[in-house]
This record gives sequence, C-alpha cells and structure tokens, in this order.
Amino acid sequence: LVDRPEERGLVYLFTGDGKGKTSAALGIVLRALGHGLRVHITYFMKGNSSGELSILSKLPNVDFASFGGGRFVEGSNIKPGDKEKARQGLADARQAVLNGSYDVVVLDEVNLAVAWNLLELEEVLRLIADKPPKVELILTGRQADTRLIKAADLVTEMLNIKHPYEKGIKARKGIDY
Amino acid sequence: LVDRPEERGLVYLFTGDGKGKTSAALGIVLRALGHGLRVHITYFMKGNSSGELSILSKLPNVDFASFGGGRFVEGSNIKPGDKEKARQGLADARQAVLNGSYDVVVLDEVNLAVAWNLLELEEVLRLIADKPPKVELILTGRQADTRLIKAADLVTEMLNIKHPYEKGIKARKGIDY
Repeated sequence: LVDRPEERGLVYLFTGDGKGKTSAALGIVLRALGHGLRVHITYFMKGNSSGELSILSKLPNVDFASFGGGRFVEGSNIKPGDKEKARQGLADARQAVLNGSYDVVVLDEVNLAVAWNLLELEEVLRLIADKPPKVELILTGRQADTRLIKAADLVTEMLNIKHPYEKGIKARKGIDY
Repeated sequence: LVDRPEERGLVYLFTGDGKGKTSAALGIVLRALGHGLRVHITYFMKGNSSGELSILSKLPNVDFASFGGGRFVEGSNIKPGDKEKARQGLADARQAVLNGSYDVVVLDEVNLAVAWNLLELEEVLRLIADKPPKVELILTGRQADTRLIKAADLVTEMLNIKHPYEKGIKARKGIDY
C-alpha cells in the first residue's frame, strides 16, 4: 500500500464552525456515486434532513441510517438515550466499514459526538485503524479531537468568515436542511 | 425582503486552499434537488469531472455547462482562449440567474477566474446585484476577492489543515474528480 498510495482509501475529516462540512461530504458522495462506487452514510445526533434523505433514497448505491432521534443534541442538554443512540450509530458505521459492501462510509457529526462524550474517542480510532484498505472514510463535525485529526489523511477546517444567522436569517428548507 | 429575510435567496461563497469548496456546493445542490428546487451549475476553468457530470446528468432538475476546455487553467499559463471561455461561462450563469428557470445557480471556480483576470470583478458583482431575490447563488474557488466576500451573505474559508497530496498521494477517480 505504501508503494501504491493512490489506491489506498483515505480518511477525510471536515471540521470547524463554518457551513460546508456535511455538504462537502455529500458532494464527495455524489461524485463517488457517479463513478459507480457504493456508499453508506451514518448520521449521528442529527434529525433526518428531509430534502437530503429524500434525494439519497432515490439514488442507487447509497444507504443511510440515522441515529439522531429527530432533534439536534446539544452539549449542555444530553439525555440518557443520546449516548445509546450514538453507540448504535457507531455499530452501524462499523458494520458498513467492515462488511465489504461499501467503498465510501460517511460518519456525519461523529466529531461532535466524540467531543460531547456520546462516543468513546478510542472506539472511533479503532474503527479507523480496522478499516479495510480500500474503504474511504469521511468524518464530519465541529470540535474534532486532535487524535482524530492525526488519524485522518485529509483535514479541512471550515472557517466561518460570515454567516447569515448572525444577521437573524433562519435556516432555510432546501438549502440548509 | 428585510421583513422576511429567511425567504430571500442568499449568496454563498466557499474559498480557501482546502478541499471541500466544490464538494460543498455539490452537497447543497443535492439537498436542493431533494426539495424539488431547480439548479444550474456553470463550471469555470475546470475540465469536466466525469463522475460528477455523469451523476448530475442522471438527476432531474439540474442543468450544467462547462467552460473549462478540458484542462485546468493555471494562473501562470493563461491562453487567449481562456478569457473568452470564462466570459462565455459568465454569460451562461447570468442567463441562468435571470431567466427565472432556476432556484439555485452555482458558479464553480468563479473566484479564481476573477483572481486570474479571466473575468472582470465588476461583472461578477453586477450579476450578484442583479439577481432576482429568490435565486440562491453559490460561488466557489480559491483567492476570493474581498469585494466578493463583502457581497456574499455566507462565507466559509476551507482551510487546508492536512492534505494527502503533500505526502505524494495523487488525486483519485471517484473521490477527487
């Protein structure tokens, strides 16, 4: 693999406060589907985004599972069930990574799930270490642990330069969710 | 519009050296399609990305046009035809923005086309100023001019924290193009 690094599946990590982390993962998914690759997306913590899931369910070769319970967990407002859901999410992602059915596996918001102690950092690092060479992993979410950044091959920080919510503009259907 | 800001179409701008600018635009496009919105993508400067264009051509409600000529223009290696192609691209985007057929219009790599003087900054600013309220614009590309940043509602800088090309890993089909 060292001799043919371009054929090794990489670990992508998108973090930072700016918009574009999940969107970038979705864009990579779209491109992968265009090449006939098979994709699995595990959504941590987030409720189902209706537009996103409705189009994904129409596309071939992409499966997804959502472990968010319909509301966005906040760090200050974690309920007992949230940890269990996150753990189920990681088990789902782990199965997708290991079972040979997928070329690309997205763990959406996993960074934040670790930051908020809904998941053990060690468990996520173990998943990265255990992944078959060909599988591409995409991890998203704010507050990525430095050890996740170290374990990733490609890391982009989405820096919030300007955001309309700061001007009182609300999230809009079809664009933001 | 000031009273109902959430219904105004915004201008998104993704810039910076990190991976994820075009991918984030594509992800927003996918979400918009899921909500039944209509999308046009104008590709500046880039050659056609086969996986990306093959899946886009299969999706409903999205049109695209590419003005890249099949190779990525470099700032140091601009040919006479490049400026003309970029100008045709802007005319294409302008038509898409103004003709009422689209809810979301992406100008991919337009920031760089301006930075390299393939396009007049004033022309792009004029397009932003002239856009109908409901249309969402997405501008991508490195080296965004400060006046484009000022004109945008949402700006994310994709900061390159770590990139595998630095380790000698090449762009991979299905993921990067």
